[in-house]
Amino acid sequence: MKAVGFKKHLSLEDKNSLFDFETPIPKATGRDLLVKIDAIAVNPIDISVRMNGSEEYGTPKILGWDACGTVVSTGEQAVLFKKGDFVFYAGAFDRPGSNAEYQLVDERLVGHAPEGMDIADVAAMPLTSLTAWEALFEKIRVNIDDVSDNEKKTILIINGAGGVGSVATQLAHLAGLHVIATASRTETIAWTKAHGADQTINHRQKMAPQLYELGYENVDYILGLNDIDGHFKEMAEMIKPNGRIVSITGNKKPLDLGLLKPKSAEFMWEWMYTKSYYQLPEMITQHESLEKIAVLLEQKKIKSTANKIIDGINAENLKAAHALIETNSSIGKIVLCR
Amino acid sequence: MKAVGFKKHLSLEDKNSLFDFETPIPKATGRDLLVKIDAIAVNPIDISVRMNGSEEYGTPKILGWDACGTVVSTGEQAVLFKKGDFVFYAGAFDRPGSNAEYQLVDERLVGHAPEGMDIADVAAMPLTSLTAWEALFEKIRVNIDDVSDNEKKTILIINGAGGVGSVATQLAHLAGLHVIATASRTETIAWTKAHGADQTINHRQKMAPQLYELGYENVDYILGLNDIDGHFKEMAEMIKPNGRIVSITGNKKPLDLGLLKPKSAEFMWEWMYTKSYYQLPEMITQHESLEKIAVLLEQKKIKSTANKIIDGINAENLKAAHALIETNSSIGKIVLCR
Repeated sequence: MKAVGFKKHLSLEDKNSLFDFETPIPKATGRDLLVKIDAIAVNPIDISVRMNGSEEYGTPKILGWDACGTVVSTGEQAVLFKKGDFVFYAGAFDRPGSNAEYQLVDERLVGHAPEGMDIADVAAMPLTSLTAWEALFEKIRVNIDDVSDNEKKTILIINGAGGVGSVATQLAHLAGLHVIATASRTETIAWTKAHGADQTINHRQKMAPQLYELGYENVDYILGLNDIDGHFKEMAEMIKPNGRIVSITGNKKPLDLGLLKPKSAEFMWEWMYTKSYYQLPEMITQHESLEKIAVLLEQKKIKSTANKIIDGINAENLKAAHALIETNSSIGKIVLCR
Repeated sequence: MKAVGFKKHLSLEDKNSLFDFETPIPKATGRDLLVKIDAIAVNPIDISVRMNGSEEYGTPKILGWDACGTVVSTGEQAVLFKKGDFVFYAGAFDRPGSNAEYQLVDERLVGHAPEGMDIADVAAMPLTSLTAWEALFEKIRVNIDDVSDNEKKTILIINGAGGVGSVATQLAHLAGLHVIATASRTETIAWTKAHGADQTINHRQKMAPQLYELGYENVDYILGLNDIDGHFKEMAEMIKPNGRIVSITGNKKPLDLGLLKPKSAEFMWEWMYTKSYYQLPEMITQHESLEKIAVLLEQKKIKSTANKIIDGINAENLKAAHALIETNSSIGKIVLCR
């Protein structure tokens, strides 16, 4: 089969940073599904893994987490899917990725794809939806089944127009929360308001005074989606006592956690690959969450965040997608279709 | 009325570090109760507030949080208690304390004292019980109403024989958790086992290998009750993926929070004064929790952690109590009775 990979961690200017190659089609065993890929989306994690590291790989490493496609065979223990099912998933962190014609994925990480949607719109969703879902409904513990309790609660989503932000704003809005998202440019402000934000503030200026201008002394929840080093102090200032902060972006400098102590505030990391990386029993919740997300997409309660579509899954197109994300100003998701 | 107070933050050698003085009996208004104090307990917070600060007070500052006593009058909005009720409470951080003959306390922070117990045993309990209760049942979210889910879960309580540890081990045991507590001396090991710990390890040696010896690769929950600076790295190593860490002791150095990221682990501070300090609506939960704690004490499902009783609430005795806690090796609680 065709695949795109790399052997050394290189910058995009290097022609070997990502290259096309041929490799055998893998065989599904255990709870794996073999999926023929229709479309993939590119996430910041793709860029991060491609760029960082000093290893050299004997056989090329295949990147790619988001994907949709068709099940062509199933392992002997697979029970959730059958041949011919159209599926979507973000896979596992430590297995060969979706930048290929075929891919193996554990069925507990897979959902039936929503029906009646373009494949690009489907492929854009799994990683960001699962991240936003787990952050909001498992870490922050917003009640999605009974939203009456959420009406008086406010969430601040830092970087509302990014991949996770564009889904998190929608899910938070759907759950009845008052959603304040940060955005700094005309087009990101418009995008995030079109994706569920009630109000926006600019994270390139001091945020607390802007929040106060909107009539909020503090917020119940904060979802941090970029530059936690730069924003942590303000997050501690803006969070309500006993409030909850969840972050998906790691810190490079020490965070002054003591700032949260008088408020007994909670700090949670969300990494959607924790469950599969540690092979936790709760891996199955990713199947369950994707099934629910598919229904929300079908019912148009949330919409796809695909914003740029490129035809052809190959090294050249992937490099173009990586380059766009490296600018750090892309809006929504970039998708490559077969 | 008689009271004990200080005007400057001094070490115990200074005779003015704590002194007896006379001050008018205050008057209950709003939701306050005026309580005639029968017994008080001394906590590390008493020592910390007495020692740290550069302020000088015109009128003496009265310390003391834990107390039990009798309601002698109520404010016009008080609805939960009446004159003559025997009550226990840990009060608010920022109001005059219990080291006095009478004290005002907001009724939302007060419980009916358990019946049939010595006043010393009652006075020992509020602050540590509320802290342990909130840490376990509100922050870590152990289900106390349906304990069937807790049987397979393990909690590590660092410093099991201290004030909060001696209640937390009991409550965690009552909730059905497997309780591993840390203790380093023969007498603290015996004490913590008598207060609900199933097993102990020594926090003065590397903890992870000892945990492994007991058959545990990691634990679901960690309750950190001392030296988070010294223990944080090991806490991150020992916590289960998606596990929960709660700490009551503040950090003096930056904590490497990124260690928790791959595991998507949660970190929560517990400060039992957050609710009253910020006057949160959930202040009332401290009344509710104390009512439940009183029942557990009456039913002997948990026992008082009073371990040393001194007769007479005065400066001399308080200094002796402070001195004992300053050794950092006291077990259970020190109580002063009128």
